[in-house]
Amino acid sequence: MEILKQRIWKDGKNLGNGILKVDGFINHQVDPALMDACGRELARRFAGVGATKVLTAEISGIAPALATARHLGLPVVYARKSKPITMPDQVLLTLAPSHTKGRMVELIVSPEFLGARERVLIIDDFLASGQTILGLVRLTKVAGATLVGIGTLIEKCFEGGRDGLLSIGVPIEALASIAEMTDDEIIFSD
Amino acid sequence: MEILKQRIWKDGKNLGNGILKVDGFINHQVDPALMDACGRELARRFAGVGATKVLTAEISGIAPALATARHLGLPVVYARKSKPITMPDQVLLTLAPSHTKGRMVELIVSPEFLGARERVLIIDDFLASGQTILGLVRLTKVAGATLVGIGTLIEKCFEGGRDGLLSIGVPIEALASIAEMTDDEIIFSD
Repeated sequence: MEILKQRIWKDGKNLGNGILKVDGFINHQVDPALMDACGRELARRFAGVGATKVLTAEISGIAPALATARHLGLPVVYARKSKPITMPDQVLLTLAPSHTKGRMVELIVSPEFLGARERVLIIDDFLASGQTILGLVRLTKVAGATLVGIGTLIEKCFEGGRDGLLSIGVPIEALASIAEMTDDEIIFSD
Repeated sequence: MEILKQRIWKDGKNLGNGILKVDGFINHQVDPALMDACGRELARRFAGVGATKVLTAEISGIAPALATARHLGLPVVYARKSKPITMPDQVLLTLAPSHTKGRMVELIVSPEFLGARERVLIIDDFLASGQTILGLVRLTKVAGATLVGIGTLIEKCFEGGRDGLLSIGVPIEALASIAEMTDDEIIFSD
């Protein structure tokens, strides 16, 4: 998706060690118009999968998931990383290693909002190692729901996350796929 | 705002002790159409304050802030509760007591995205004790920026948060103001 790639070129920063800083427009400061355009494009790509719910993980998945869900006319559920007091005692919970936090984090969804009849579209900001998305896939399975697609804004192809998702057999879409990050350059694969 | 109040009546749950469960449409599962309508209404109410940026706190402030910012055509910044590795070493940080977590939490904003020239509109999901919003007010002040308004989806008037904000002298708007929560009832003040 050209406008996202242009924005990454313009405002993204390669911090080295494969770390891409996009907190000027995606995950600290958010550009709502860009996010809306990304949501529209993800909604277009997944228009035919028959999703009934969008699932993401807090925190930085919320903005792209919300934009996509709005364009699809679907509710969005974001997995919490700690259980709020408003959640029932019995929850769906999985552990996923967090790249940015350097430890395991919990991903928690209330069974009230993820039932066996749902057709789930997972949306997140990044597909890197794929561990967070795999956690969301496990939550979908344990709920008895059907996974119908996985979409992300940015894929870091060099972290290989897609390889671990291919066997699931659902469409995987990324709006900007980064093949390589060298010292000063961000090289897209498409 | 009638549709939000109707939704609270229909899907909100009074858990007792002043706790209102709205995680079916605001802060775990989100209804993007409702959130969009709320954002449009908040944008309408703050159309004249000359805001240049919307500021909120992760996690549950993100959805209403993003919707409001989109309708105002402004960027939104969400204060982080832990410092990501992509953030510079020098940050704007304040502590605020968290009602739901029962401890102090950090609110952290990168100075890259909150400068002295900004005119800041604070948006959050709840105005209850007002402590999170006061934290965002402090971040705005320490950045040297100008606060121009405070907007929330739901105000729990009985927690008195508004009293602590009135002296700031900016407009405060809530789309649904709850005067009282008795055993089985949610009583709106308007």
